[in-house]
Amino acid sequence: MHTDLVAALDIGGTKIAGALVDDRGGILVRAQRPTRAKEDGETVMGAVASVLEELAEDARWPGVRALGIGSAGPVDALNGTVSPVNVPGWRGFPLVERVGKIIGGLPVSLVGDGVAIAAAEHWQGAARGHDNALCMVVSTGVGGGLVLGGAVRPGPTGNSGHIGHISVDLDGDPCPCGGRGCVERIASGPNIARRALDNGWRPGPDGDATAAGVAAAARAGDPVARASFARAAQALAASIAATATLVEIDIAVIGGGVANSGDLLFTPLREALKEYATLSFVQGLTVVPAQMGNDAGLVGAAAGALRELTGGPGPTG
Amino acid sequence: MHTDLVAALDIGGTKIAGALVDDRGGILVRAQRPTRAKEDGETVMGAVASVLEELAEDARWPGVRALGIGSAGPVDALNGTVSPVNVPGWRGFPLVERVGKIIGGLPVSLVGDGVAIAAAEHWQGAARGHDNALCMVVSTGVGGGLVLGGAVRPGPTGNSGHIGHISVDLDGDPCPCGGRGCVERIASGPNIARRALDNGWRPGPDGDATAAGVAAAARAGDPVARASFARAAQALAASIAATATLVEIDIAVIGGGVANSGDLLFTPLREALKEYATLSFVQGLTVVPAQMGNDAGLVGAAAGALRELTGGPGPTG
Repeated sequence: MHTDLVAALDIGGTKIAGALVDDRGGILVRAQRPTRAKEDGETVMGAVASVLEELAEDARWPGVRALGIGSAGPVDALNGTVSPVNVPGWRGFPLVERVGKIIGGLPVSLVGDGVAIAAAEHWQGAARGHDNALCMVVSTGVGGGLVLGGAVRPGPTGNSGHIGHISVDLDGDPCPCGGRGCVERIASGPNIARRALDNGWRPGPDGDATAAGVAAAARAGDPVARASFARAAQALAASIAATATLVEIDIAVIGGGVANSGDLLFTPLREALKEYATLSFVQGLTVVPAQMGNDAGLVGAAAGALRELTGGPGPTG
Repeated sequence: MHTDLVAALDIGGTKIAGALVDDRGGILVRAQRPTRAKEDGETVMGAVASVLEELAEDARWPGVRALGIGSAGPVDALNGTVSPVNVPGWRGFPLVERVGKIIGGLPVSLVGDGVAIAAAEHWQGAARGHDNALCMVVSTGVGGGLVLGGAVRPGPTGNSGHIGHISVDLDGDPCPCGGRGCVERIASGPNIARRALDNGWRPGPDGDATAAGVAAAARAGDPVARASFARAAQALAASIAATATLVEIDIAVIGGGVANSGDLLFTPLREALKEYATLSFVQGLTVVPAQMGNDAGLVGAAAGALRELTGGPGPTG
């Protein structure tokens, strides 16, 4: 049986990953470089080129029919440019054009990283079989993507599902995005750690002052550490309920480092959800852990490329 | 030229309106009864039947090909039932089946009133030509509906766009829906009046203690009255920005009694929107008054019926 082969790029603030992916979502070969996000834009582009060169050395490369990019946002899928918050050297950077020059005439698709993750979870992971889903990453930042009516909805510019920057606290703390009371400002890993420290928590002997350290303390019963996770869970619950109330999703899938703390996050989150998801049509909403792990970005970017090829609503393999 | 003719029902807590509507959105004849929402469910159904009987007396009734219902929510389009918050006698009431029995074998469609209004504004009003729009009503309650990718999106149960019950203040006042800090709890007419009274505003010689009275005082320069409108505008801005950040709308259309106060609401709303709609892909978002007035519910319900007939994404007439 003929198999469509595509290339995928997952552009983040820390690393740039690439892969060849088959039409069942299988990753055949990978390449990865540090983003070097603090350097100039051409240096970052050099890392992308280097990833592509390594992939092109694979014997299967000539069979690649399209390339999909999932990038830290915001992106502009209409113009093929990206402006990742954590990559200051890229502002309106013409990534689709530059990648296109390297790989020749193959079609190139671009979506935000949250959209890519939603595509991956819908295709292969925890949102499989759900026509209306929110998929989130709660990590250094908070991002997401939406599946509506059976298909991933990137939105006109590829940025739909940016749930980390909706306000759930209209008088709340200023967020680096310029807003106030954003979900990310309350629920991201660094903000879980900051809030615990502000309220008197101190790291243990290992000196780990990150959200992972807070999680360890919470598991050991530290009330300040537990409260910081509960507050993050409350903000996530309000935002998930808001999304369900606006667009009728029936499942929220959450991955990322903070979600990996498991019940510490999911138990208070499910509890808080009852307080915010009140209308009859959202009361059945469930929240589950993501299944795609670190491959979500690559698999989702590949899904975007395959969707371009088939013209359909999404991969079905 | 052949003209498709449909019947429309607009079910609200105060009145039940019906009409015959042509496929260009023209209202040919109307009928209306008080809902008598405090009485039992059969009494309310009697008002619906009476509206339909009056419409059926029109000479054009035999040409009617379908009937569309827009109802105060929540609705359940999957099961054809409605449970309007303000009509306690109807809980899981089988409105589609009951209406179907009265009108014979015609197809009957059902959506929430917010969805109907969005359909009307997209078809004939302020959202015309916009592929991605939020349409809202700010009145006794706060409701809405969404246009995504060029078509109204009712959602699986017909309730999408319930923006009045998303929380923008996660620690805020309890809302009658069971939630906390809901947009409706801050921005509806009764809450604008309540907040002004709580903060020391008193009605003028006419004794009008409603939002209209607050609006008159605000226009005369009363600072407490102005502040109450500004607070409503802030909550609306946060919720509109959240919607745009989640699903990439480029226009928000606002109708209803509170929106009729014009610049008193729209000026602080547009100002506050800058504070919450911060990401690059939502900065172009505009907010405009609705154009369909009191006919929006009927025209939108008719749009739903026509969509059923044509099978397409929406009326194009």
